[in-house]
Amino acid sequence: MSDPQTVPGRIMAAEMAEQPAVLQRILDEGAPRIREIAGEIAARKPRFVLLTARGTSDNAALYAKYLIEILLGKPAGLTSMSTTTAYGAKPDLTDVLVVTVSQSGGSPDLVASTKAAREAGAITLAVTNNAASPLAEVSEFHIDVLAGPEKALPATKTYTAELLALYLLVEGLRGGDGERARVLPGLAAGILARQPEVKALAERYRFAQRLVITSRGYGYPTAREAALKLMETTYIPATPFSGADLLHGPLAMVDNVSPVIAIVPDGKGGEALQPVLDRLRGRGADLVVVGQQAQVDAASAGFALPPGVPEEVQPVLEILPLQLLAYEVTIARGQDPDAPRALAKVTETR
Amino acid sequence: MSDPQTVPGRIMAAEMAEQPAVLQRILDEGAPRIREIAGEIAARKPRFVLLTARGTSDNAALYAKYLIEILLGKPAGLTSMSTTTAYGAKPDLTDVLVVTVSQSGGSPDLVASTKAAREAGAITLAVTNNAASPLAEVSEFHIDVLAGPEKALPATKTYTAELLALYLLVEGLRGGDGERARVLPGLAAGILARQPEVKALAERYRFAQRLVITSRGYGYPTAREAALKLMETTYIPATPFSGADLLHGPLAMVDNVSPVIAIVPDGKGGEALQPVLDRLRGRGADLVVVGQQAQVDAASAGFALPPGVPEEVQPVLEILPLQLLAYEVTIARGQDPDAPRALAKVTETR
Repeated sequence: MSDPQTVPGRIMAAEMAEQPAVLQRILDEGAPRIREIAGEIAARKPRFVLLTARGTSDNAALYAKYLIEILLGKPAGLTSMSTTTAYGAKPDLTDVLVVTVSQSGGSPDLVASTKAAREAGAITLAVTNNAASPLAEVSEFHIDVLAGPEKALPATKTYTAELLALYLLVEGLRGGDGERARVLPGLAAGILARQPEVKALAERYRFAQRLVITSRGYGYPTAREAALKLMETTYIPATPFSGADLLHGPLAMVDNVSPVIAIVPDGKGGEALQPVLDRLRGRGADLVVVGQQAQVDAASAGFALPPGVPEEVQPVLEILPLQLLAYEVTIARGQDPDAPRALAKVTETR
Repeated sequence: MSDPQTVPGRIMAAEMAEQPAVLQRILDEGAPRIREIAGEIAARKPRFVLLTARGTSDNAALYAKYLIEILLGKPAGLTSMSTTTAYGAKPDLTDVLVVTVSQSGGSPDLVASTKAAREAGAITLAVTNNAASPLAEVSEFHIDVLAGPEKALPATKTYTAELLALYLLVEGLRGGDGERARVLPGLAAGILARQPEVKALAERYRFAQRLVITSRGYGYPTAREAALKLMETTYIPATPFSGADLLHGPLAMVDNVSPVIAIVPDGKGGEALQPVLDRLRGRGADLVVVGQQAQVDAASAGFALPPGVPEEVQPVLEILPLQLLAYEVTIARGQDPDAPRALAKVTETR
């Protein structure tokens, strides 16, 4: 009998399984405080939003960028952190909201760049999973994503927690109620219960040499996060492209031995992706779709997502089968998802 | 005797070779007009800059983002185009300079998003290689990068031309003279003359299954463009990471069968990259460096760049050996750099 303490991937599996409860906790316990902070920030009338993050949190920040541009109607950008930390750039950040997203809140470059932003006149907000972190301390505002301690090296529950917290933040900034997110915990539990489907899908990638992952619009951050999760656990090079960028060159990489995973949002992002999917099918690509049943049926294989979910909150659900896929492919390849080579949980980049 | 009309890669080779002349043309004929446009834009006092582009031009736009943040001290962001073209977002762009970069100036989504930006109050500037393009027409200002018709599918001379034009633009916006770029045409010619060195280096990647490309700061756009160029010509999956992001997860992918190419800027970006290079060497990675001779000597192999060039214009030179590398690896693998699978020169994404 195997010792449950040593089953490969048990920590990552446990944290993936916590996600419905974490999402519910944010809606129940976190939302009022997020709404309050959003109200205070909105009263300061920021004109431009900069998002600062690294790794998995950078993909959550990219999701927030879409929300801010589409729902809030404000221009937004992702920070190139080295301009501050290596080059000492001092842009004038009056009227700028700087949102720094970090699981640990401990990376020195994030702390330094947030501190510099505050000194340069920005409204600073940290979104972290650690209210006692240095990042929370140097920021004017702090949102706790309430995911509980994350021990697995591949971040899962803090990613979906960051997505939901950022959605509620943007809703708060525009005076919305965030009610559309209410369906997420229940639907997330339903998706996670379908792990056997993902396990069957994982067989397809057991011997893959490379992967291309694509999406558009709200689904693009999911493509990036899925690629990162697959790379850091399976070590298969997984390259994410927005569907539009894929047509501008890298399509040459895709042939009938290069599997493609497409995240097809149910909405405008998915519609904009259709010409890309047509081109991929035309090239005989092995196409696995995460999206609505009809999209899955038109592909080589896939994972069907529940219908009727507003497009702007779909990313919280889309990533779940892809987290499970990274886990299952890693197990199938005889590796341990809890012990990626060369990774430390708090990455100290400067 | 082989017919020169059918030698594989002859179009790409010819266009790479034109680069010193193109750079000289921009300095001699383009610079006064760029300075004039920059003066008019500066008088309007933009507070934020948004950059819009796809593919190779998106990497040039990322270089401009570093220049704007570091040299100009203004916050900048890269546009997520689908927020406008697919979702109809209408952010308030008063006081925002929107710079759209495109070789052809013909892609419908770039034209649509620039038009929408102008209607939303932005100062719009198109940087293209075609003064008669729809993009030039819908923009308030236009800078011609003067590269002459580009026929090869992998863009080379328009990339370096865009870099130099954007450098001169930012110099003009801050009242600089752009004199630091004067050395570029001569040094570019010297680098391109060293093609046999690159050909020897290409042997190393002939059978590679994957590549990781990394840099930091001003060198990061070069890492992205090198990855794109290698992917669209050789079809080897080449994944670019900022050095800091590489430590946040994907380092697990790097082992002694995963070659790494590092672009090491001579300056602060290169200094910030040293801990990453140490980690890579510690993991036994095959590390090829494009940078100063001392950096090359500390790696497995590399290509030495001329010393004494200001860091902010080094990207114009750094990419040259990597363009040559993409070309030589493609030839070594028996493919034709002029005929990548599935690519059209003007990509019509919507």
